[in-house]
Amino acid sequence: MSAPHTQSKLVAQGPLGTEEARWIRAVKTTYTDPLGVERTWESAERTTRPAGVELDGVGIVAILSRDSGSELLLQKQYRPPINKVVIEVPAGLIDVGETPEQCAVRELLEETGYVGVAEQTSPVMFNDPGMCNTNLHMVHVKVDMSLPENKNPKPQLEENEFIECFTVPLTSLFGEMKKLEKEGYAIDARIGTLAEGIELAKKWKL
Amino acid sequence: MSAPHTQSKLVAQGPLGTEEARWIRAVKTTYTDPLGVERTWESAERTTRPAGVELDGVGIVAILSRDSGSELLLQKQYRPPINKVVIEVPAGLIDVGETPEQCAVRELLEETGYVGVAEQTSPVMFNDPGMCNTNLHMVHVKVDMSLPENKNPKPQLEENEFIECFTVPLTSLFGEMKKLEKEGYAIDARIGTLAEGIELAKKWKL
Repeated sequence: MSAPHTQSKLVAQGPLGTEEARWIRAVKTTYTDPLGVERTWESAERTTRPAGVELDGVGIVAILSRDSGSELLLQKQYRPPINKVVIEVPAGLIDVGETPEQCAVRELLEETGYVGVAEQTSPVMFNDPGMCNTNLHMVHVKVDMSLPENKNPKPQLEENEFIECFTVPLTSLFGEMKKLEKEGYAIDARIGTLAEGIELAKKWKL
Repeated sequence: MSAPHTQSKLVAQGPLGTEEARWIRAVKTTYTDPLGVERTWESAERTTRPAGVELDGVGIVAILSRDSGSELLLQKQYRPPINKVVIEVPAGLIDVGETPEQCAVRELLEETGYVGVAEQTSPVMFNDPGMCNTNLHMVHVKVDMSLPENKNPKPQLEENEFIECFTVPLTSLFGEMKKLEKEGYAIDARIGTLAEGIELAKKWKL
């Protein structure tokens, strides 16, 4: 039996009219360059960011800490924009009034069933700032696998969420990403470049 | 005198009509979920990807190799979608018929003036696959600083490109990102998570 997430199927992909769009919008920015020349730039943004908030969400670097070693918690999730199942970190959009750390602990529990403690928060990072304004904090969450509540984690997924969790030893993350790509999965840049950073540190003995 | 890239100024930001858009388009995807329920998803894509090509561009991990140590080459560039100067790796869109490695070497020369050799190419990485289909390979390029052509690098920027290059020792990348954020720069997620990977490798002694 194949995993549920692999069973999503593309039906159609086509233009989205402005009047029809609810979740994203196209944006035109007019600016002057350093020589004073007026230019325009086209981009996209989410409509879900609460007014006055400058952050969309969090990505979660969840380390499962066991006596036998530390593993990174990852997800497989079908992403309609690219019609592929993507390997990515757990993530979620921030609710009004929530801190990034609260959001990370809540989303981790909802998406994976694990109870964790936020230990560290990255600078705000912009996913593709020439293309869109979406951004996130990476929040590092430690999951103590000796706790009884983490023995048998039960995700609390919404009815439109189909997510499969798995773990990878931190030290072999880059090799695992290459293997998963060969198997037909897409690699999210946030996890791919994290893996590359680990490889750079090894290569240059940092 | 402040650097040229800081002198771009926002004039206006507002909705972009479908008929007006030239560089990006909004997309509606219809798909069936694992339970057979038909759903829709909204996203954005670039119009610049050549037909039949599945890749937008490359990011360049350019290591400046000196006797005294290795540094990572980074850029400061104003990004209109977020109205901030962003710290990012050199990058560029792929031309028709070009390999990722050719694109990386060409873009590095154009944007920074450095002559490098592509050593390694990452899996395809998707920048924000719930939001848009944009993707890239990270190509690792070695820049031999003992070569005469790298003594006095001259970027070949287009008339609408305003890019400032700088270097950071690999080992202090994460700290530098935090410092630059405090100074008001935005951090691109691809370089931010690379820095996080280096920190994880140090912390867990990988």
